[in-house]
Amino acid sequence: MNKVIRVDMSQLTVSVEPVPTRWAGLGGRGLTSTIVAEEVPPGCHPLGPNNKLVFAPGLLSGTPAAQSGRLSAGAKSPLTGTIKESNAGGTAAQQLARLGIKALIVEGLPAGDTWYRLHVTQQGVSIESAAELTGKQNFAVIDKMIDTYGPKIGVMSIGVPGELRMCAANISVKDPDQKIRSHGRGGLGAVMGAKRIKCITIDDAGAGKVPIANPDKFREAAKIFAKSLLDHPVSGEGLPTYGTNILINILNEAGGLPTKNFRYGQCAHHEKICGETMHDTIVARGGKHKHGCHAGCIIQCSQVYVDKAGGYITSGFEYETIWGLGANAMIEDLDDIAICDHLMDDIGIDSIEGAVLLSAAMEAGIIAWGDGKECQRVLREEIGKGTPLGRILGNGTASVGKVYGLVRVPVVKNQGIPAYDPRAVKGIGVTYATSTMGADHTAGYTIATNILKVGGYVDPLKKDGQVDLSRNLQIATAAVDSTGMCVFIAFPALDIPESFTALIDLINAAYDLSLTADDVTELGKNILKLEHDFNIAAGFGPADDRLPEFFSYEAIPPHNAVWDFSDEELDAFWDF
Amino acid sequence: MNKVIRVDMSQLTVSVEPVPTRWAGLGGRGLTSTIVAEEVPPGCHPLGPNNKLVFAPGLLSGTPAAQSGRLSAGAKSPLTGTIKESNAGGTAAQQLARLGIKALIVEGLPAGDTWYRLHVTQQGVSIESAAELTGKQNFAVIDKMIDTYGPKIGVMSIGVPGELRMCAANISVKDPDQKIRSHGRGGLGAVMGAKRIKCITIDDAGAGKVPIANPDKFREAAKIFAKSLLDHPVSGEGLPTYGTNILINILNEAGGLPTKNFRYGQCAHHEKICGETMHDTIVARGGKHKHGCHAGCIIQCSQVYVDKAGGYITSGFEYETIWGLGANAMIEDLDDIAICDHLMDDIGIDSIEGAVLLSAAMEAGIIAWGDGKECQRVLREEIGKGTPLGRILGNGTASVGKVYGLVRVPVVKNQGIPAYDPRAVKGIGVTYATSTMGADHTAGYTIATNILKVGGYVDPLKKDGQVDLSRNLQIATAAVDSTGMCVFIAFPALDIPESFTALIDLINAAYDLSLTADDVTELGKNILKLEHDFNIAAGFGPADDRLPEFFSYEAIPPHNAVWDFSDEELDAFWDF
Repeated sequence: MNKVIRVDMSQLTVSVEPVPTRWAGLGGRGLTSTIVAEEVPPGCHPLGPNNKLVFAPGLLSGTPAAQSGRLSAGAKSPLTGTIKESNAGGTAAQQLARLGIKALIVEGLPAGDTWYRLHVTQQGVSIESAAELTGKQNFAVIDKMIDTYGPKIGVMSIGVPGELRMCAANISVKDPDQKIRSHGRGGLGAVMGAKRIKCITIDDAGAGKVPIANPDKFREAAKIFAKSLLDHPVSGEGLPTYGTNILINILNEAGGLPTKNFRYGQCAHHEKICGETMHDTIVARGGKHKHGCHAGCIIQCSQVYVDKAGGYITSGFEYETIWGLGANAMIEDLDDIAICDHLMDDIGIDSIEGAVLLSAAMEAGIIAWGDGKECQRVLREEIGKGTPLGRILGNGTASVGKVYGLVRVPVVKNQGIPAYDPRAVKGIGVTYATSTMGADHTAGYTIATNILKVGGYVDPLKKDGQVDLSRNLQIATAAVDSTGMCVFIAFPALDIPESFTALIDLINAAYDLSLTADDVTELGKNILKLEHDFNIAAGFGPADDRLPEFFSYEAIPPHNAVWDFSDEELDAFWDF
Repeated sequence: MNKVIRVDMSQLTVSVEPVPTRWAGLGGRGLTSTIVAEEVPPGCHPLGPNNKLVFAPGLLSGTPAAQSGRLSAGAKSPLTGTIKESNAGGTAAQQLARLGIKALIVEGLPAGDTWYRLHVTQQGVSIESAAELTGKQNFAVIDKMIDTYGPKIGVMSIGVPGELRMCAANISVKDPDQKIRSHGRGGLGAVMGAKRIKCITIDDAGAGKVPIANPDKFREAAKIFAKSLLDHPVSGEGLPTYGTNILINILNEAGGLPTKNFRYGQCAHHEKICGETMHDTIVARGGKHKHGCHAGCIIQCSQVYVDKAGGYITSGFEYETIWGLGANAMIEDLDDIAICDHLMDDIGIDSIEGAVLLSAAMEAGIIAWGDGKECQRVLREEIGKGTPLGRILGNGTASVGKVYGLVRVPVVKNQGIPAYDPRAVKGIGVTYATSTMGADHTAGYTIATNILKVGGYVDPLKKDGQVDLSRNLQIATAAVDSTGMCVFIAFPALDIPESFTALIDLINAAYDLSLTADDVTELGKNILKLEHDFNIAAGFGPADDRLPEFFSYEAIPPHNAVWDFSDEELDAFWDF
């Protein structure tokens, strides 16, 4: 990856630059956050001319290493106001890497009302009219681009909510089977919409393989790394069999499955929506219970969920979405939840934010609790079309809370809190509160250690050790998010020493480096700190690293736990 | 004023307490801000159980001193998230003062769906059912309370937007002529709505006069003070003749009249909406061009604006409202603007926020520029009834901007910027940026010195001296807001030495004190600092003391001025 491409939407020009030395050792989140921190004024309006949208493959993207096909997108988030990195599978990371594109930076805003699309090839980037695509949702955009460029084309697109700059809008990425993966969190689709880019297509025809400095060493490390993934019970067995939705029963058992907008920690109908039921349903109907989000994935935690007649409903059907609609919004029918998931893919909104905001709409009395059909209508007819109600909802959970005057609004830095109750699983609460991204379980997934007992065990109901746990995981995750690796490599990396060593060997072999584990930790720390510095300059301080007040006075059954960290305890997170 | 009354809406109980010594020398804003700072957790949800709504008459309220009938209301604001004081005329301040009530503190939230009203008499406060009032707008509530208690009853009420906890909702206060004055800014009506209090009635029957320690000294000072008000050209001539709307032509001439959502500094149709036209229209139609918002007002800047047949349209028809609808939203017909003003009184939303948010709705394409009839429909049918669109709008300018993905959103700390362009009148920009209240011209009205040349002159287009000017005025205003005096006493106080001395003499005579000018300055400084400390603890920092980014890159004609203060220059505001 030897070039950086800048697209200036104010001037409608494209320039190709060599990679500055200071960016050479960075990829993925490390690179997107560095570029945003260097080039975006922290106080700027996220939808204004001074924000930039940055895409960067990880350091290992495009290589044959397992799980390395994740793409990072970064910007100042219109949802949170913080710096934001959101990563996704799909084909784009590997295609950009093969084209040698270290980063694609989109700047400025076009004058006038014209919509554009970008087409990325070996020849560079062209800016085309997207007049025929506006008003279309994602699957229609992908179909149209496949018609134009053939089935191998990479596509990143936004639906109507993105065009309308809604803060829940994501950026959808076509996967190898024409399904959709998402840069979900933080409203990056709205940033793309503000820049009036409907989609970005990537044609890597003619591009060679990604160069590997030491192929033998790389092959050997890749083998050990892959074996560790298959050997670990979570990545080798649990996820491939039940998908991430294996977590419904586990969290319900732990009393940490937020139910009815975070009122309860257990859900009476958990068996109807759990991973085991989902697996059996898929198998019985002839769907696929294993599916990878990118070429080279050997975990295959995705699936193809089909209806009773075997027809496609959705893919990439994740625990957090199923939790949000199933337990938190009380929808009991998994098919209804699957249709909602498909609709969120199609219109292009984050399915975590989407699930949490639909629960908030129920809290506000807009939708009846558990009414899956009405959720589908709201997604299709309101959010998907940008009615006033649709815009309120499509701007996220915090928007619903604000506009309807709610007090029980589960957000941190305006981003919806995902599928793990912070009172019953206190480590993840520390992550929600302190993450540079707003409430984000993936930023420091303490569930691994609090609940799954991966990498040791820290009692989820006690405060002891949670800040350290979250800090260590957030540092490690920031580094992993820079490699292009999927976050689930953390399971073997935390438990199997050779796995983590092999990951470092992969980077060393690819780039002829001699990084150590300490270097990786240092990278993670640096990323967190530069993101934190950006946020501070944007106006965030310790008082923003807090959970919503109601967690402190509403005890959650069955443990009747409250959120009880002091300000000092939380602020100690940044002591490193 | 010898007692503090607490109403606990969680328990539905009332308690009467003596005035703590530390509160004895405080009134109005000084007292509401002190109580909020002492008792409200800065991180609490403004609509949750831990916010408090505090009413406090000023130190001189209820006395015969001219202009002393203002009432302060304070809370943590749901609009801005900051501490908030908003003061209003009407009869309530004087009635509470006569009843000896130094502060009325409403705490907690009731369980269940019942609506309540409070009735304040010499016997104390009773909590009554308000079942028959819910869903009614303000004039209907006032009528109903007059039917119940007679025409002298004091009423503070909220309309439907307040019931629905919209952030633009104000608290309306009945004036001596059954017209409406407002605790306008900051969404305090939503706090009252969250506490499920539809209205507060005050019956001061049987209450004696407010005690004056030294009546002779008081009478003498009052005479000098009143004379200075009548002698000054602004308070004695300009305001009584043309009302505050005298400013349309003055600001237009200065190039600081924000037009079409802050695109231009001059408005082509200014003659149609200016104070002179308004005055002539009122006189020709047989309305009243002079009117006081409270007994004892001798400026009489209000008016009764009538239609062609002489029928009442509105009162308290202020420059900021007329600017917002007339220039900023481009409505050319003063009658249409007056009807909007009446509707905002009736449904109970801040008429500054209302005017700015309607302009934002035009920016978003929801309403056509200048369409006054559609604004009336939107106020009546959407905001007044709480439709989804109405809630978006009723939550204020920032809400419209967020939900519709706008970049040109004139707010500071989410509060709409009022009627003076900060690029062309830079002193007021410093006030908007640094005020503890969000964008608020009254917090430090530099227009006096920048434009009206009261208290000296500081060139509005240059940066020199603006921070000092704004600081001095903000300190003085915080003190004046504690006396119960209307802000317009500043005009003589700034220009006529005896006027300011007389104000201090009034307080000294009333309470048998020997305050000096330095003491008053110290009081103002203390208030600002405790408000600032509250905001910092609530998560606000220097990065929040900024104007919206677009003011820095969009030059405003005719001066083609941009907002060009550095962070350091603005942060120097707090060096005192």
